[in-house]
Amino acid sequence: MMAAPDSLQGAPLRIGVVGLGRLGKRHAQNLAYRVRGATLAAVCSPLDEELAWARGALPAPREYRDYAALLDDRDVDAVWLVTPSALHAQQIVDALRAGKHVFCEKPLSLDLAECERVLGEAQRQPHLQATIGFMRRFDPSYRDAYDKIHAGLIGRPFMVRSQTCDQNDPDGFFVRFAPSSGGIFLDCTVHDIDVARWLLGKPKAKRVYAAGTVALHDGLREFGDVDNGVAICEFENGGLAMFYASRTMAHGNDTGSEVIGTAGAMAIGRNPRVNRVEIADRHGIRNECTPTFFDRFEDAFLHEAQAFVAAVKQGPGGEQGGATLADALEATRIGSALRRSLETGQAVTL
Amino acid sequence: MMAAPDSLQGAPLRIGVVGLGRLGKRHAQNLAYRVRGATLAAVCSPLDEELAWARGALPAPREYRDYAALLDDRDVDAVWLVTPSALHAQQIVDALRAGKHVFCEKPLSLDLAECERVLGEAQRQPHLQATIGFMRRFDPSYRDAYDKIHAGLIGRPFMVRSQTCDQNDPDGFFVRFAPSSGGIFLDCTVHDIDVARWLLGKPKAKRVYAAGTVALHDGLREFGDVDNGVAICEFENGGLAMFYASRTMAHGNDTGSEVIGTAGAMAIGRNPRVNRVEIADRHGIRNECTPTFFDRFEDAFLHEAQAFVAAVKQGPGGEQGGATLADALEATRIGSALRRSLETGQAVTL
Amino acid sequence: MMAAPDSLQGAPLRIGVVGLGRLGKRHAQNLAYRVRGATLAAVCSPLDEELAWARGALPAPREYRDYAALLDDRDVDAVWLVTPSALHAQQIVDALRAGKHVFCEKPLSLDLAECERVLGEAQRQPHLQATIGFMRRFDPSYRDAYDKIHAGLIGRPFMVRSQTCDQNDPDGFFVRFAPSSGGIFLDCTVHDIDVARWLLGKPKAKRVYAAGTVALHDGLREFGDVDNGVAICEFENGGLAMFYASRTMAHGNDTGSEVIGTAGAMAIGRNPRVNRVEIADRHGIRNECTPTFFDRFEDAFLHEAQAFVAAVKQGPGGEQGGATLADALEATRIGSALRRSLETGQAVTL
Amino acid sequence: MMAAPDSLQGAPLRIGVVGLGRLGKRHAQNLAYRVRGATLAAVCSPLDEELAWARGALPAPREYRDYAALLDDRDVDAVWLVTPSALHAQQIVDALRAGKHVFCEKPLSLDLAECERVLGEAQRQPHLQATIGFMRRFDPSYRDAYDKIHAGLIGRPFMVRSQTCDQNDPDGFFVRFAPSSGGIFLDCTVHDIDVARWLLGKPKAKRVYAAGTVALHDGLREFGDVDNGVAICEFENGGLAMFYASRTMAHGNDTGSEVIGTAGAMAIGRNPRVNRVEIADRHGIRNECTPTFFDRFEDAFLHEAQAFVAAVKQGPGGEQGGATLADALEATRIGSALRRSLETGQAVTL
Repeated sequence: MMAAPDSLQGAPLRIGVVGLGRLGKRHAQNLAYRVRGATLAAVCSPLDEELAWARGALPAPREYRDYAALLDDRDVDAVWLVTPSALHAQQIVDALRAGKHVFCEKPLSLDLAECERVLGEAQRQPHLQATIGFMRRFDPSYRDAYDKIHAGLIGRPFMVRSQTCDQNDPDGFFVRFAPSSGGIFLDCTVHDIDVARWLLGKPKAKRVYAAGTVALHDGLREFGDVDNGVAICEFENGGLAMFYASRTMAHGNDTGSEVIGTAGAMAIGRNPRVNRVEIADRHGIRNECTPTFFDRFEDAFLHEAQAFVAAVKQGPGGEQGGATLADALEATRIGSALRRSLETGQAVTL
Repeated sequence: MMAAPDSLQGAPLRIGVVGLGRLGKRHAQNLAYRVRGATLAAVCSPLDEELAWARGALPAPREYRDYAALLDDRDVDAVWLVTPSALHAQQIVDALRAGKHVFCEKPLSLDLAECERVLGEAQRQPHLQATIGFMRRFDPSYRDAYDKIHAGLIGRPFMVRSQTCDQNDPDGFFVRFAPSSGGIFLDCTVHDIDVARWLLGKPKAKRVYAAGTVALHDGLREFGDVDNGVAICEFENGGLAMFYASRTMAHGNDTGSEVIGTAGAMAIGRNPRVNRVEIADRHGIRNECTPTFFDRFEDAFLHEAQAFVAAVKQGPGGEQGGATLADALEATRIGSALRRSLETGQAVTL
Repeated sequence: MMAAPDSLQGAPLRIGVVGLGRLGKRHAQNLAYRVRGATLAAVCSPLDEELAWARGALPAPREYRDYAALLDDRDVDAVWLVTPSALHAQQIVDALRAGKHVFCEKPLSLDLAECERVLGEAQRQPHLQATIGFMRRFDPSYRDAYDKIHAGLIGRPFMVRSQTCDQNDPDGFFVRFAPSSGGIFLDCTVHDIDVARWLLGKPKAKRVYAAGTVALHDGLREFGDVDNGVAICEFENGGLAMFYASRTMAHGNDTGSEVIGTAGAMAIGRNPRVNRVEIADRHGIRNECTPTFFDRFEDAFLHEAQAFVAAVKQGPGGEQGGATLADALEATRIGSALRRSLETGQAVTL
Repeated sequence: MMAAPDSLQGAPLRIGVVGLGRLGKRHAQNLAYRVRGATLAAVCSPLDEELAWARGALPAPREYRDYAALLDDRDVDAVWLVTPSALHAQQIVDALRAGKHVFCEKPLSLDLAECERVLGEAQRQPHLQATIGFMRRFDPSYRDAYDKIHAGLIGRPFMVRSQTCDQNDPDGFFVRFAPSSGGIFLDCTVHDIDVARWLLGKPKAKRVYAAGTVALHDGLREFGDVDNGVAICEFENGGLAMFYASRTMAHGNDTGSEVIGTAGAMAIGRNPRVNRVEIADRHGIRNECTPTFFDRFEDAFLHEAQAFVAAVKQGPGGEQGGATLADALEATRIGSALRRSLETGQAVTL
């Protein structure tokens, strides 16, 4: 945090955050207080309590209940979508048509045609930044691994093992969410898919296979979903990936990745330590674990916001690092194929 | 090592070791000096230098160059086969017909019909012990995990992740061995298959999928083999397994497993530490790793020999813990299906 | 970061940062952008380049070259001293006399009489907050350990082992700094002294012993200083502490503590991992380490600023958690005794 | 375990084990079954049950109830003393006078004059091997660290931190043992003293300081002993050591050391993992710990026996690695000084 680079000088980027749920609140506070070169100009939510929260916790942004009204605000340069997944695609299209840069939480859409429709619109607005929030790319440990790989530390990377494992929620929120989540692979594994492609040089997938089991949450069966899923993905460049997603971990959110190369390997987050404390007692020696992805990726959400602002200020062609719409489409494409493989018991060729 | 239990009292089990390569030497020394209730009565090898070694390092066992002659020795109760894989099946059959108990290194056979032929012979000799050497079951850490699972520590185990990863051998011995090894899944992953079935309650497999890549050893391509392979195995009881096998690790032999249950998980050998030393220098803090499976499983080979002797002394129906011929057949069955899946790019239903 | 608690509502605390070196810059940025309920109202530095930096990186605070002028600014409620150690005592006294709350980086003073003079002044201004910056108390891991101890997790804590070990600086800055640093125990170990007292219930010391060696930096000898020092401290309540301070670590800043109780123990920062990456290559498996205390305690500096502001807003008698002037005096008292013990080779009774 | 080296050829060393308590049993079994070049020729114990155990568990050694009778046995080349500490010195003298090599468990004697008397006798019998059982030198991890230090991996080693921490025994056996144990430093820390000297080049101590506390076992107070003791030892060569001994650990036997050098450091046994299993459950991620030194140093006891036999076969001047009588005397000298420092609260100059 030295003097801001030139690219962050000049008028701040005026951002409107749309959706103020738990994650929306975090994004809003980061943008309001911790992202140089940005101003939180507006918030948008249909819920009274969320707007009331904004009044107390944020530096007086303009308030909107209606997304269209926000888009009409000429003093908003970019929108930050933290809304239900089913709204993402159309909201991105609307924002681009209104001439605004867009950051949107993942997923772009569970529907490939929708994804492509958004890409089409974005191609007509090449001067606008559109980024999907795969925040792991901005976690300092993932970033360090990425940089070391690019410096050649492990030779040629040819395989990624990656997992998204949530602590078991006995209330089973995600069971109620199952009808619209797209299933475990589109809801969780998309992150691992993006990580694998990012670390392996953005290859396209050629074939996938998936399997799964219901360990604890029988309610998932009626939706054809599982609470533990595994998958293999083969890429066109010869790269391989193995994925694991779980909703039933006992010890916490255990989310991490491993990259294997011809001269070494790196593991990111192998033990999801919550901090630097080790406890020694009659049970042995232990560390506690990060309870949720929200705790695990606290820094990543901030850095992703800082990177987005820097990317807008650099303009088209800049090196920003976030997931593009094309990356998000590929993640959906692979995630959908995993779901189909789970349903059919057959490998799916893309 | 307190006073020997009753079952180890009485006349010692007289064992003949067949094959005195590196692993045969270790077995012979364990049986000669470290297994209570057993005597190393004979050795058999066609090679002068191996017999010469035996004369210097072992307590004067009888020497044979010919396996048939060893089987004729009435003062040998059991044979210990550490011979080339292609000989295993017939040598086991011959031993059983000669009325001798048999311990045989894995694999039983790469050919399913051969496996079944051996099982048929063993069923005709139910008073004889026949064990295949899946030594991981006797590693103290695997054994501890097994016991804890059976005590309910992690609830119902439903998934195993297991890997056999060798340090890269630039000389590529295994490339020359490829024509007869059966490929990476039958050569390496059989261990993981056996571990997964053992930890999940010995289920039968219903479907498998495999993929692989050649990272370093192009010479494997002509045999349809890979130097890094991944696989998914679904079991009839709903259990899942993921496997990884590699010939190209930079850091050592990294062989371990993870068992995931409804109330917890256990990892065995996650960091393959060679000992208890940690080094702190300008590269950070590090531990060195076990170079080969031979070092990693030194204790397991001993305990497996002790368990075999105890099992013979307990007689049929005893609880001995080693892999049965039926276990070995199932490992070959699954390993063969993985190979077929690798070749075809399709899931294989068993 | 939910809605601000009541205590942080109302007019912001207006703070003036004095000294804009590396650490001063960090404090200024934290106060400017990341501490709710505070405003960075002014900065003070005699150096052009530091003031120039402030103009670019901070939100337009008033600028002063002269400390007295800052104290005259009626719109400054608190001063934040990040100045050379020799100035601390008088600057605190001046601030208190000017009616301003004070945060001051450690040490309070290397001179016990000076420490007591400051305490005397503070007692005359009981409505003003005066805190010394022992930031480890605000590191999330130290804080977690503290809370767990208070919840009884390890029974009665009776011993602390604590260390401050810097990566070797071949340039030997600290050798040139030796004449005024007070030596390794007053410069480094004061942190460990404060940690030990904080975790053991703020006992007074009754006897100390220290020893040391010069491993690499012979230039220290002329000042009677060492680059590696060890010490034992016995407290009046029966508690024990062992300290280690080093200037010559090869692997990074390795700063941590261990608390031992009658029912368990806790280690804080045993392996100073820089992040969540593990590298596996021909050297084994390793993690990189935090290079400096500045990296290691980044979060702690922020939380300490937040706690100070909260403490001022709560008013006298609040539970703020930072080190009081009395704590700082006791740290100096013990540190001075350690130095004397090092010089004499005798235990020193306090 | 390849062919035995020449030095182990020839007639086996005929050993008589004296004392068959828990540790004596282990030594006897190692010597009987696992040490090449040695024969367990005789055992000596005044207790019926120990001799009965020997009959069942050992290969028919000659039995003696009386030490003098064993010394008269001309077919015993060496005695292996696992007897009460108070007997060690005289038993060693008697053995040497009887022309027998001696291995004796630590300590040589708690009395310095006694130690010197034994050394005097040994100097009159330079052709006889006399070794004191500081087994840590033979633990594979300690040995690896020693070798790496000698290869220069950490530059010049200048400091050792070492600890002997036993799991708390609620029965307080060691309290009843306190009158004769010599106190925590002579009973436990002697091991750390020997380790420190061994790793730092066998320096002599010049000054020590010790302190301690009674955390749980009040019964120790009447003997002037403590259940947690800390100490600093300064060596003539500028080396430093810090020691910690505890009887009250909750998590197991936590015995290890750290060596710090000018170019790096090594930790041996920092986390006393009992095996390679990690458990992940609602308490976090943990490993269990070695319960006792007996489990922790199982390998070391074996290797120490092998080294003793090799040393005898090499003859005087050989490089054997075990602690000499002079090493043991120095350990007693330092341990006694630590006890005196604990009693007086003063540093003790040697």
